[in-house]
Amino acid sequence: MSGTLEKVSSTKSYEGDLIKYKFKSAALGGLDACFNLFLPANAASAKVPVLIYLAGLTCTEDNGAQKGNFLGPAAKEGIAILFADTSPRGAGIEGEDDDWDFGTGAGFYLDATNPKYALHYNMRTHIQFEIPQVLEIAGLPIDLTRMSIFGHSMGGHGALCTYLASKANQYRSVSAFAPISNPINAPWGQKAFVGYLQGGIHEAKEQYDATELISKHSDPVHILIDYGTGDYHYKAGQLLPENFLNAARKAGYNDVQVRVREQVGYDHSYYFISTFAEDHVQFHAEFLKA
Amino acid sequence: MSGTLEKVSSTKSYEGDLIKYKFKSAALGGLDACFNLFLPANAASAKVPVLIYLAGLTCTEDNGAQKGNFLGPAAKEGIAILFADTSPRGAGIEGEDDDWDFGTGAGFYLDATNPKYALHYNMRTHIQFEIPQVLEIAGLPIDLTRMSIFGHSMGGHGALCTYLASKANQYRSVSAFAPISNPINAPWGQKAFVGYLQGGIHEAKEQYDATELISKHSDPVHILIDYGTGDYHYKAGQLLPENFLNAARKAGYNDVQVRVREQVGYDHSYYFISTFAEDHVQFHAEFLKA
Repeated sequence: MSGTLEKVSSTKSYEGDLIKYKFKSAALGGLDACFNLFLPANAASAKVPVLIYLAGLTCTEDNGAQKGNFLGPAAKEGIAILFADTSPRGAGIEGEDDDWDFGTGAGFYLDATNPKYALHYNMRTHIQFEIPQVLEIAGLPIDLTRMSIFGHSMGGHGALCTYLASKANQYRSVSAFAPISNPINAPWGQKAFVGYLQGGIHEAKEQYDATELISKHSDPVHILIDYGTGDYHYKAGQLLPENFLNAARKAGYNDVQVRVREQVGYDHSYYFISTFAEDHVQFHAEFLKA
Repeated sequence: MSGTLEKVSSTKSYEGDLIKYKFKSAALGGLDACFNLFLPANAASAKVPVLIYLAGLTCTEDNGAQKGNFLGPAAKEGIAILFADTSPRGAGIEGEDDDWDFGTGAGFYLDATNPKYALHYNMRTHIQFEIPQVLEIAGLPIDLTRMSIFGHSMGGHGALCTYLASKANQYRSVSAFAPISNPINAPWGQKAFVGYLQGGIHEAKEQYDATELISKHSDPVHILIDYGTGDYHYKAGQLLPENFLNAARKAGYNDVQVRVREQVGYDHSYYFISTFAEDHVQFHAEFLKA
């Protein structure tokens, strides 16, 4: 059982409040987990929809809140945004702090099956089930029947996979900035999967690869992806958004259902994200407020 | 003579470019100085006005660019924003790195007269004259006849004082978020002035105190100030915006010329700044594009 929410801080922003919470996370092996929740002003009088943001490698729950330019658009639309962390913190596993792209700050939004990591590295369960549960128990003014998800880079991978793997329309829409779209064919993904999963790439292919998942998908989807042509990691073959797009088209999804936009000259940074932040929040608002 | 501009990096954002430049600064005793310049897309075809941003204690030229939410509004208005650093870096003066509110990261936008600091700590000259000069010499698409200035906290102090002390309408307008408005009567200001200035508080009173300066001012002004009632430093008496407002009214300035807005519940952070960022950019755009 996860612990109760403790309010760490609250900061007024765009007439709403950005609140940092902490709780003992069962999914993460009993470690403290933090997230930031932006509640727009209208949450004072009625439950609001929520958009969950998953950040990229090396980030915490703060980066998206500080640099993403999401709060203004969310305040305008009257929707909450939840900024999650990217891994457990302080699990004390040998080697988890050695690399910037594996271990701490790099949980890859999966549930680890390698025994070395299986107690703590369960970010999928943490994001998909545990955080909504603690929000519900705490009685926060969030309407969990109106939930969408988005993310950046590793978090774009997490958002796409969690959305495509979820049942019963748990999320209304998904979007991503520069997502790792076909990680079984990219160095970052391969390293993570071999490390976290007992079945390695083979296991990942069934559950944690957005391109593989969309190719076997048939339910209606609402997907928006942006990536920049000036993105070093795109050029290095870490993101492979074309693979995702091709698989989506082959699976029969058209440009309304799956939209992948190439943004000329933009890189991988929050300067890219913030430029298209309002687009993404508005995209989700269409479904969250429908 | 200041050195020529070297481009450190360029990042596309909001259809424009955020460019980091470096140059050998004569005003800062020959040390390398960095600034970020956001050039909106329209700067490709014509010179654009520029708004100079001065950050607060502990910041660099990056904080405002990353967290201020200024780039989107500036892109919309077609104006450039220049983000300056807050002090010289690496002067090697004994004790300059000991405190967070004095020395490195805390130049207070003055020209030091204490011999210990006088070679390097000349942020006033750096901001007011040197940076415009290097922009001009580099042939950047900036119209230096259309310049305004704003800032946060220590940078709000810097913006107000530089504006009020400048001659010949060098700046068209000034604004500030939670500025140190009467530093000769506040602990931060007193510590800085005693340290940097041979004449201490007395010398500061003539040149570096916005409340003192506005009380002796008679030229037309365009001033906008926001501060939050939840701001710890406001409550601790570091900001004293009421003193500035009272002095401005006594000097005969009305609510159109000098507007000081109390923002209920907001704190001292970039979450507060970003909330009102668009207001400030639009305020300056009125004068810059007039």
